[in-house]
Amino acid sequence: MIDSTRYPRLSRIDSPAELRRFDENELRAVADELRAYLIESAGKSGGHFGANLGVVELTTALHYLYDTPEDRIVWDVGHQAYPHKILTGRRDRIHTVKQKDGVAPFPKREESEYDTFGVGHSSTSISAALGMAIANARAGNDRRVVAVIGDGSMTAGMVYEALNHAGGMDEDPNILVILNDNRMSISEAVGGLTRMLGRMTGSRTLNAIREGGKKLLGDKDGQPARFVKRWEEHWKGMFVPSTLFEEMGFHYTGPIDGHDMDALVGTLKTLQGLKGPQLLHVITTKGKGYERAEADQIGYHAVSPFDPELGMVSKPGAVKKPTYTDVFSDWLCDMAAADPKLLAITPAMREGSGLVRFSKEYPERYFDVAIAEQHAVTLAAGMACEGAKPVVAIYSTFLQRAYDQLVHDVAIQDLDVLFAIDRGGVVGPDGATHAGNLDLSFLRCVPNMVVMAASNEAECRSMLSTGYRHEGPAAVRYPRGSGTGVAAGNNLDTIPLGKAEVKRHGSRIALLAFGALVPAAEKVGEELGYSVINMRFIKPLDRELILELARTHDGFVTLEDNVVAGGAGSGVAELLAAEGIVMPILHLGLPDAFQHHASREDLLSEAGLDVDGIRAAVLRRFPAAGEAKLAGNA
Amino acid sequence: MIDSTRYPRLSRIDSPAELRRFDENELRAVADELRAYLIESAGKSGGHFGANLGVVELTTALHYLYDTPEDRIVWDVGHQAYPHKILTGRRDRIHTVKQKDGVAPFPKREESEYDTFGVGHSSTSISAALGMAIANARAGNDRRVVAVIGDGSMTAGMVYEALNHAGGMDEDPNILVILNDNRMSISEAVGGLTRMLGRMTGSRTLNAIREGGKKLLGDKDGQPARFVKRWEEHWKGMFVPSTLFEEMGFHYTGPIDGHDMDALVGTLKTLQGLKGPQLLHVITTKGKGYERAEADQIGYHAVSPFDPELGMVSKPGAVKKPTYTDVFSDWLCDMAAADPKLLAITPAMREGSGLVRFSKEYPERYFDVAIAEQHAVTLAAGMACEGAKPVVAIYSTFLQRAYDQLVHDVAIQDLDVLFAIDRGGVVGPDGATHAGNLDLSFLRCVPNMVVMAASNEAECRSMLSTGYRHEGPAAVRYPRGSGTGVAAGNNLDTIPLGKAEVKRHGSRIALLAFGALVPAAEKVGEELGYSVINMRFIKPLDRELILELARTHDGFVTLEDNVVAGGAGSGVAELLAAEGIVMPILHLGLPDAFQHHASREDLLSEAGLDVDGIRAAVLRRFPAAGEAKLAGNA
Repeated sequence: MIDSTRYPRLSRIDSPAELRRFDENELRAVADELRAYLIESAGKSGGHFGANLGVVELTTALHYLYDTPEDRIVWDVGHQAYPHKILTGRRDRIHTVKQKDGVAPFPKREESEYDTFGVGHSSTSISAALGMAIANARAGNDRRVVAVIGDGSMTAGMVYEALNHAGGMDEDPNILVILNDNRMSISEAVGGLTRMLGRMTGSRTLNAIREGGKKLLGDKDGQPARFVKRWEEHWKGMFVPSTLFEEMGFHYTGPIDGHDMDALVGTLKTLQGLKGPQLLHVITTKGKGYERAEADQIGYHAVSPFDPELGMVSKPGAVKKPTYTDVFSDWLCDMAAADPKLLAITPAMREGSGLVRFSKEYPERYFDVAIAEQHAVTLAAGMACEGAKPVVAIYSTFLQRAYDQLVHDVAIQDLDVLFAIDRGGVVGPDGATHAGNLDLSFLRCVPNMVVMAASNEAECRSMLSTGYRHEGPAAVRYPRGSGTGVAAGNNLDTIPLGKAEVKRHGSRIALLAFGALVPAAEKVGEELGYSVINMRFIKPLDRELILELARTHDGFVTLEDNVVAGGAGSGVAELLAAEGIVMPILHLGLPDAFQHHASREDLLSEAGLDVDGIRAAVLRRFPAAGEAKLAGNA
Repeated sequence: MIDSTRYPRLSRIDSPAELRRFDENELRAVADELRAYLIESAGKSGGHFGANLGVVELTTALHYLYDTPEDRIVWDVGHQAYPHKILTGRRDRIHTVKQKDGVAPFPKREESEYDTFGVGHSSTSISAALGMAIANARAGNDRRVVAVIGDGSMTAGMVYEALNHAGGMDEDPNILVILNDNRMSISEAVGGLTRMLGRMTGSRTLNAIREGGKKLLGDKDGQPARFVKRWEEHWKGMFVPSTLFEEMGFHYTGPIDGHDMDALVGTLKTLQGLKGPQLLHVITTKGKGYERAEADQIGYHAVSPFDPELGMVSKPGAVKKPTYTDVFSDWLCDMAAADPKLLAITPAMREGSGLVRFSKEYPERYFDVAIAEQHAVTLAAGMACEGAKPVVAIYSTFLQRAYDQLVHDVAIQDLDVLFAIDRGGVVGPDGATHAGNLDLSFLRCVPNMVVMAASNEAECRSMLSTGYRHEGPAAVRYPRGSGTGVAAGNNLDTIPLGKAEVKRHGSRIALLAFGALVPAAEKVGEELGYSVINMRFIKPLDRELILELARTHDGFVTLEDNVVAGGAGSGVAELLAAEGIVMPILHLGLPDAFQHHASREDLLSEAGLDVDGIRAAVLRRFPAAGEAKLAGNA
């Protein structure tokens, strides 16, 4: 329970209705309590941090002035929604964020009526808010719709698609887009847009510039009014980034200081009286009010539990097992040293995808294209056309954004692009929006693709080399975190294309395991005396080995951390069917349902993909064989 | 062979090298011949038309001034690449365009070294060209790269992603983007961008405005040069659409008349001397030089063979069988009449997707979002949140662009969105880029989705009603063209969710057919005495019926016009495996390869999915049963 002595106001706010009972002049104090509570709570739970501190005032002002949940607030990405969750009934549970059965890490419709749109991926808010505004207008409902989007999210193409539509409609939609400008996406916003946004922070203050503008305009009384107005707009456009938005048909207001409660409340009140598409530009500081987070915005983007008094402290002595991301990071630099043709691309995930070292060692071969997955993949295709060897480092879930580009620009043309797919399979605490549960299915159906899944760190490295050396599109998929800890080494050796690895020669049943499930399959195979295969390739499959196994075994079990529907195991069954082989097969994989947030281990276990679950499922399907063996063991 | 009397210059141009031997003052005449030849040839072959006429001068100038194929020209979409193909060695074969073994309808790398990047979907050219420019710069190669993109393609988000990246790079890339502005995408460009582009056509001429600007600037001598320069830029921005591009970091030139050969040549020469990202804005007329096409730009976007003297003439008396698109069109209007909550969305495919009638009858419920598939789907998600019932009409191949939005914004939230997927399965003459061969695979793996495939027109209508009435995301997939001709009727009846239809009770083998292959399966089943099932639902499958069929038959054959990998048939096999049923199964479907362009019938036949192919495959797999029955028939 919240301490009502430390938080005399926040402790009384169980919903925005209570917030709205406060006097406007107390909002500053409410925001201060909210910020302190957020720091305290994030210290306990970890989670996204910096972005949340940046929107404390904005969140408070929005729930104060808008009649939520009747009015709709759509948070882009949603990693900045903790203050929103605290003010909308989840104050006392916010410390459970990201934990199993705890508060979801992002807005989630089924969690709260205040969460109007589920998010996780960036740049969806304007489209969603526009859809809401249109639907409400058609239904004759005059509720208000607000989208809050960070500057980092502004680089994704769908934002422009939405702005273009909203700004060009015959009947102006009533939406307010709040551009929360903190000059950062997860790492650093890049590109022309950032340059444009950055232009406004000159040495002269904005107001001084504006005053100058007014004086200049005062001399132009002889001009027609329309000309003066347009001149003023464009003269203003020289110094503030209004131009782009106004060109798209939005009315631009700002920039205002997003930590100045009076400015926020005053401006929002004015905007509430205006019709048509509005854009409010708010400048905030990521990590605001927590000095260490302000000073290290990337480090404090998301945190593990920490003591707010001490900040994040790396635990001495604890040698961290290298993650798959680390393996990729090292491999990339080593391969770059060996092959000058290598170019690496990331859509704004330098840290997450393990490109920090590469970006420093090979800055001229490193391309952070901002949050722009579609462009990232077609850019790679263009590079490959000219003989370069592009590596696209991307999370499985974000690759969904570039699916057409993968099919249309890379695979159809059989271009030499390597996809290094991090966070494949079960991801965990970030929930369904970040799951990599579908990639084997949506990649396997694409002609020309080579698809691999790594079962340990050393194999991941070999697969990256293999995919890189293969002439044509290839994907290596590896999970979040670390694996069995097999040292990756430093060679650039490849493995034979389409060849699996027999881990254990057993009898009766063959366990055909893909990627992260190989270790569990090995344990179960050992226990039950079955054969165990590390399949390595989802595509092409090791046809020869599968046929031999089919001849020598009574049944197959396929294991993968991908949905069963259309997954790697399905590919094995297709091959058997194509060969006219009829034999029992059991597919173990992820369920045909979106998984909630929990630890990766919990989710694998829930899906029956830990050792116990696999053993049980195998014995259920092949009781005679299993029981016989177990009896023999006893 | 080309007639050298009618085409004295063009007949001598077998490659751009020959073009470059002409005197600059002869280019006008070359372009005139090229246009005449294009009209003659398109009259014979049909194909894309209007856009090609619009770029005759531009294409001629580019190949004249750039050292192709050493320099790279990237055509966006590529339906305007016929003049390019004529000038680059395919003059005498251009009349075979879209035919089997004929010239490809779009640029295709394997067809010609002049086709630097394969296209078909729009808006990829800037990304690809940027990738090429970067790769060349890294390799120390100074070849030039030009992207030609239409204004319609500018609405897709990936264009902005590419502009943002190109304009914001530390090291300016040397690319020239030519904006071919004909004020049209396939139907009509929509949105804020179009408004902006349209603004420049005022009553005053551009030059007059500019002169005025110069005079005004002349008075400002006292101002610092930098200020005057920026003022000039922005003052210019009031009348020409330079602002957006310059804000993104591009140097803007134009607009110039894209049919004025001297202007084109002169401007391109100037631009060849400049470094960094350049944007040249060219105004062209779709259908230029063929009066009927200029007057009816939508009608002449793509044509069937026609007599240039007469234009396109609708054949009297020939009653056209309604296409699936027509069925959707009628259903949509009827359902809209029955349910005021229905809203319909198209990403710039009003004509192709059958929304013309709806757009006229329900303009306030019709949303053409421009080429913006990602936004289209998330917009629908937003609408569904507010209780509206959005229908997204989209081609299978273009849905690939919105895959993440379908997963992340619609399916995870289980929102009530209907996807009406036209051009599912084999599409044909437009080639691999437009094929709908993957959709059952990439949709089936997504939790919460209901996926249907229509086997005839009446069923398509019932499925649309079923998907619409179902609370949650649903997709109805139907092929290009017409089906068996079963009258669709005018009711809004639904079919039971997840229930298949037994078309024929037979014995031994059950043919489980999905969508367009049901009629062929019926014929084969009739011949061989097998059971035939119209499966209707790819997801959820009719479990009960499948189990019953498994009990009563010796083997299954699944049939679908989707790749076998992860397709509908795989789903049947997964169900059997999950139930512990072991029985012979044969999957017939599309190959694990991208199909070339040819007629839909040819491609189905090549894939063994016509009656002969299916019969042969079934008998190969189940010889005893088939031969026995055939012998009995004889």
